[in-house]
Amino acid sequence: MNKETLIEVHNRVKPYIHRTPVLTSGLINDIVGAKVYFKCENFQKMGAFKMRGAANAILSLSEVSRNKGVVTHSSGNFAQALSLAANKIGVDAFIVMPKNAPQVKKNAVKGYGGNIIESESTPVAREEMANKVRRDTGATFIHPSNDDDVILGQGTAAIELLEEQPNLDCIFTPVGGGGLIAGTALVAKYFSNKCKVIGGEPTNADDAFRSLQSGKIEYNETTNTIADGLRTNLGDRNFPIIKTEVECIILVNEEDIIEAMQLVWERMKIIIEPSSAVAFAALLKEKEKFKNKTIGIIVSGGNVDVTNLPF
Amino acid sequence: MNKETLIEVHNRVKPYIHRTPVLTSGLINDIVGAKVYFKCENFQKMGAFKMRGAANAILSLSEVSRNKGVVTHSSGNFAQALSLAANKIGVDAFIVMPKNAPQVKKNAVKGYGGNIIESESTPVAREEMANKVRRDTGATFIHPSNDDDVILGQGTAAIELLEEQPNLDCIFTPVGGGGLIAGTALVAKYFSNKCKVIGGEPTNADDAFRSLQSGKIEYNETTNTIADGLRTNLGDRNFPIIKTEVECIILVNEEDIIEAMQLVWERMKIIIEPSSAVAFAALLKEKEKFKNKTIGIIVSGGNVDVTNLPF
Repeated sequence: MNKETLIEVHNRVKPYIHRTPVLTSGLINDIVGAKVYFKCENFQKMGAFKMRGAANAILSLSEVSRNKGVVTHSSGNFAQALSLAANKIGVDAFIVMPKNAPQVKKNAVKGYGGNIIESESTPVAREEMANKVRRDTGATFIHPSNDDDVILGQGTAAIELLEEQPNLDCIFTPVGGGGLIAGTALVAKYFSNKCKVIGGEPTNADDAFRSLQSGKIEYNETTNTIADGLRTNLGDRNFPIIKTEVECIILVNEEDIIEAMQLVWERMKIIIEPSSAVAFAALLKEKEKFKNKTIGIIVSGGNVDVTNLPF
Repeated sequence: MNKETLIEVHNRVKPYIHRTPVLTSGLINDIVGAKVYFKCENFQKMGAFKMRGAANAILSLSEVSRNKGVVTHSSGNFAQALSLAANKIGVDAFIVMPKNAPQVKKNAVKGYGGNIIESESTPVAREEMANKVRRDTGATFIHPSNDDDVILGQGTAAIELLEEQPNLDCIFTPVGGGGLIAGTALVAKYFSNKCKVIGGEPTNADDAFRSLQSGKIEYNETTNTIADGLRTNLGDRNFPIIKTEVECIILVNEEDIIEAMQLVWERMKIIIEPSSAVAFAALLKEKEKFKNKTIGIIVSGGNVDVTNLPF
């Protein structure tokens, strides 16, 4: 891994993604006591950073593989991202979703051009169905977070953020499956000589926090958090990067997440999803430690049901 | 009036305002069938374009007048705008508010440094109290919309929009007291040779629509609209400009407004207030007429109670 590889990845995905804006708020800076730069991936195509990793994973395939399509199992943002990226690149995307997934999520995948394959809702059933699709079609399986090309793609948000704000002392990201924080940590390492990467994670789904403590991948026993994008666990491709390159993970409870989300909505007038609010909540919780620092936050996405809010 | 005057106004207010971003959405463009550029005054200081007019009105006063402060009666965005602008410029702001105004609005004004003077809630009582403050303190009364300097200040949002998108065929704004649309119309006249200005107005507060029809200022008999910033009527300073420079006003009903607001929230991930949604709702309603056009929309503000939404 080196800086040139990351630059190549960025150039590869550029035609398929938005360069999202970096926003600031004087009121938020006053509240935190630091300069905070929000990288707005909620404005990304399909509403989340996952478009970056999905695009890079597909573009990294050989011509022969691309023609056979890609397959994943997800009912969240990655399902939509892979569908849209595949659509724009001109390949087939097969999305394994549980039969009982909400119709609105199925519609979103269909709207972006994905082919939905229904399965039973257990993780084993979903995996088996994805394997079956792979065997039947020759499509390449792409994991939402534990995939080298996905990890590198997700890092490109931090490349753009550091281009605009080269003096960041640290970047906060949420931690779910680990793709975003691992990619961000690699970028911080190669594009800055001081920028540290810090994760925010819900106390109610603290697998990554415990994994850093124990030195091996831990699993969630409960995932009772509003931050529905962060219920997954780390994997063997991203955990080694996280273990060596991430400064620390800060846990936040459900009230912290909802308060941080509401604060951003009210003060910045942008819609961020609960999973994104986790990163900002982590900064708020430990703000005394970051006084007068220059801080980036990856606002991971903005896909929220606005008719059903927690406040 | 000429272009140079407007450029002077813009330069005068620049240090006190944000240059807000202009955002676009491929999905919205597809829905409308046109290229739509949203000038995001919801990201303006205090959350609305009114900061521009308030700053220009104060900065246009003589040194002697400034030292005596400014006074207005408003319980909405202009109260906050005048408080914040006065605070930043270093003069006193006296805000006459009805005793029964919501505490959250009083707190906002206080938070920005305004001095609240309570009055009874009738228009006559508020005006009398403003006159009393003026007599007692020597402060200059500044009307929220029917004031030449306020009108010119509000126009500066359109200057920035036309700088970024010089080829706009038209700009949509909401119509409330008339300051924003009058200022925008003057800017369109002097900064473009083709850009028309179109107003959006709630059917339930259609005074401006009827004023354009009758040729004299008409008043609302009811103001039963969710677009609470648009319940006021035009004035003798802005109506002559609106009469000669505005192309037309399009009426929209309450469902149109709420649908347009939800569409922007969901697709663009930005928080806009109902009054802002009125301008976009007007475009949506008549979209067949604007096929393939290049259109600007002044998103006037984003001050919404996110705990109490209409959807």
